[in-house]
Amino acid sequence: MAVHLARGTRDVLPEQAHKQQWVLDRLRAVMERHAFDPLQTPAIERIETLTGNYGEEGQKLMFRILKRGEGAERGECDLALRYDLTVPLARVIAMNPSLRLPFRRWQAAPVWRAERPAKGRYREFWQFDADIAGTTSPMADAEAMAVATDCLSTLGFQDYVLRVNDRRILRAMARVVSPDAERESDVLIALDKLDKIGRDGVSKELASRGFDDDGIQRLWVIIDDVSRASDPLSAVESALSSSNEALAGVASLRTILPLAEDLGVPAEQMRFDITLARGLDYYTGVVFEVGVASANVGSIAGGGRYDGLVGRFSKNHVPAVGISLGVARVIDVMEELGLLDQAPPRADVLVSLWDEKGQRQAARIAARLRDAGLKADLVLDPIKLGAQFKRADHAGIRWVIVVGPDEVEKDLVAIKDLKNGQQRSVSLEDAVGIVCASRDVAAEM
Amino acid sequence: MAVHLARGTRDVLPEQAHKQQWVLDRLRAVMERHAFDPLQTPAIERIETLTGNYGEEGQKLMFRILKRGEGAERGECDLALRYDLTVPLARVIAMNPSLRLPFRRWQAAPVWRAERPAKGRYREFWQFDADIAGTTSPMADAEAMAVATDCLSTLGFQDYVLRVNDRRILRAMARVVSPDAERESDVLIALDKLDKIGRDGVSKELASRGFDDDGIQRLWVIIDDVSRASDPLSAVESALSSSNEALAGVASLRTILPLAEDLGVPAEQMRFDITLARGLDYYTGVVFEVGVASANVGSIAGGGRYDGLVGRFSKNHVPAVGISLGVARVIDVMEELGLLDQAPPRADVLVSLWDEKGQRQAARIAARLRDAGLKADLVLDPIKLGAQFKRADHAGIRWVIVVGPDEVEKDLVAIKDLKNGQQRSVSLEDAVGIVCASRDVAAEM
Repeated sequence: MAVHLARGTRDVLPEQAHKQQWVLDRLRAVMERHAFDPLQTPAIERIETLTGNYGEEGQKLMFRILKRGEGAERGECDLALRYDLTVPLARVIAMNPSLRLPFRRWQAAPVWRAERPAKGRYREFWQFDADIAGTTSPMADAEAMAVATDCLSTLGFQDYVLRVNDRRILRAMARVVSPDAERESDVLIALDKLDKIGRDGVSKELASRGFDDDGIQRLWVIIDDVSRASDPLSAVESALSSSNEALAGVASLRTILPLAEDLGVPAEQMRFDITLARGLDYYTGVVFEVGVASANVGSIAGGGRYDGLVGRFSKNHVPAVGISLGVARVIDVMEELGLLDQAPPRADVLVSLWDEKGQRQAARIAARLRDAGLKADLVLDPIKLGAQFKRADHAGIRWVIVVGPDEVEKDLVAIKDLKNGQQRSVSLEDAVGIVCASRDVAAEM
Repeated sequence: MAVHLARGTRDVLPEQAHKQQWVLDRLRAVMERHAFDPLQTPAIERIETLTGNYGEEGQKLMFRILKRGEGAERGECDLALRYDLTVPLARVIAMNPSLRLPFRRWQAAPVWRAERPAKGRYREFWQFDADIAGTTSPMADAEAMAVATDCLSTLGFQDYVLRVNDRRILRAMARVVSPDAERESDVLIALDKLDKIGRDGVSKELASRGFDDDGIQRLWVIIDDVSRASDPLSAVESALSSSNEALAGVASLRTILPLAEDLGVPAEQMRFDITLARGLDYYTGVVFEVGVASANVGSIAGGGRYDGLVGRFSKNHVPAVGISLGVARVIDVMEELGLLDQAPPRADVLVSLWDEKGQRQAARIAARLRDAGLKADLVLDPIKLGAQFKRADHAGIRWVIVVGPDEVEKDLVAIKDLKNGQQRSVSLEDAVGIVCASRDVAAEM
């Protein structure tokens, strides 16, 4: 029987799974330093909870689940796999009014989108999200940005750049292209593609959407003016002085950016970028993205303020701001930059097996090593000793314990150091001590 | 808009999520001590991969996913949510012949079954699995049992009991009821319910399935003989002496049980139980379950040897043995027994906020504390100071840092110990040192 994975999904095999775990552990430590709480929501949500949040495109990409029993034969669906972690969070906040606000939560979990699979793009992929709900404080926006950059620096990235904008400034920009408020998102969707299709591409797309050339040219003039200005925020104020919204956006950034710096975001790695649009339509205030200069990929994290989303599920207005990291993309870039080279060995010590008669003693030795907190692998079949050593070496295990007839007679074990090939006979307790000591030294390095 | 969860699913809110994380961390440490590797498989599998492994009942309980595009309007489904972690593992082994065998892997992940929701029974629930594939060594069976009991003792359970049987002995028992090999699983399905419906219930069910009374009585005679015997395995040999299969099962247990003891399973907490059937039909050798005497629930972990499953997906015969823990059930029982009372505080220190002007300084203090590796919460809105202290106290945070006008003038911070209410003014560096020291002491306790 030929067997296949579902299209666009993949298995994460041990070598890769160890790396992913290493990354997730470090990201979790960042969350804990910033006092975010864990939260877990189900992978399956009612279709009506998800519908209407991701635009027409998102609606099509949703994995829908057939009803069980009644309705199944007619192809009726009542559930869908979550599409992101933000809408479920908004649902949780709406359904749990007793949650203490402001509420900081992080969540690492898979989401599903039936996109056309491509290199690095899967239909099931992990997001790592952190959000603060229940406050409009600029401190919260700054915290979200600081969490994002703390994630990157903790993982070893050095040349990341945090680009920041405000959705209100973007809206005013859209009005420059067309005064029609209804067409705002058409402008932003086109502008969002600037990194990918360039200025000509965006102009063409805007023209094909029916915007006139004058409006499009006015857009580029403002973008050029602001990008060249020594004080871009003041340039925005001059260029969009007739928009109270844009002025509010600038004022807000003037508070948030220094706070982000106080919270540890290096000033030289943070820049205002008037072209940063962010695709999702629920953002209402600050938006930002983090990219890595030395890696040729798009952003690896992004986020912003979304003050209206919880209100879609509840009468309570609960403002919120958050970030989302694409875990697979982070790992891809780390591999590219060589940041994931030193994977820890999968065990501290291997207990080898001389022959079948030695099983019980090998088992007792493994139990003793594990009791001491050591990671002890145990050979299960008495294959040739050389193959057992090879196996340890391949897995990066430094120590191998051997109990041959000589050792049995003297009630000792032989311990071999694969680092230098030396072997000596010691008591089991001494062997435990040797491995513990070498592990502690390695941990300190 | 009224908003609901999908039926039979739940959110794990922070308090519970912290506990779940604590449990999963400890289980993972057990896996690492036993040198199991992590593996991750997608939540969605092709329907044909899952079909035919879980019996008729399982087939009905599967969540099926509607095709995207073509076929959707006819209600066609091509994918389903995984039903357990064992069949996907068998698929991985079949698809990756280069995996080094024996292969030890663990995986913690949700599975989905559209069962009728009830107390403690959800439609999305986490399983924690550990398996060894690629060897028939009795050491592997013993390792699986030792991992299961190590999980329980690491979580603080003391009075767990590991019940053990062998599928070959069970098959011979089924033949005692009816010589018809085809009807074997009917007998085992009924016997599997013994804990729930008692002996009369099982007898009735067997009768209703058309087995004659003589056969049913022969079954109980053997069970009684074996259960009362001082050496139950010898009693099985006598009672089922005409079955080579049963004799092979006994011989295998005579090797496995002492090895499990050598690997750390306490002999007095391990017992042969001829009535232990295990529902799933893919088991071929040893089967076992772990229960907790002091908690009135069924088993919280179980497993066994399944030498035929990989062969369903591949020409290669790859024998395997494994265990599965129900994470929610483990947590429920721990709550019941008071094993989850000491949750760690969600932060080491809270940086309070005197007024809006103090935001930047509070941000810098939080950044410094986090740099030192401390978990630092940060108040985002300048609510009343008393409410800020209350918030810290409620979250179990011991230290609060306050910077009022006095402290600003002297370039100091006030640090308050909520444990005794004392407050003093110190330099920021001294405050960092105080919190670090108290955290290190707490970690050692």
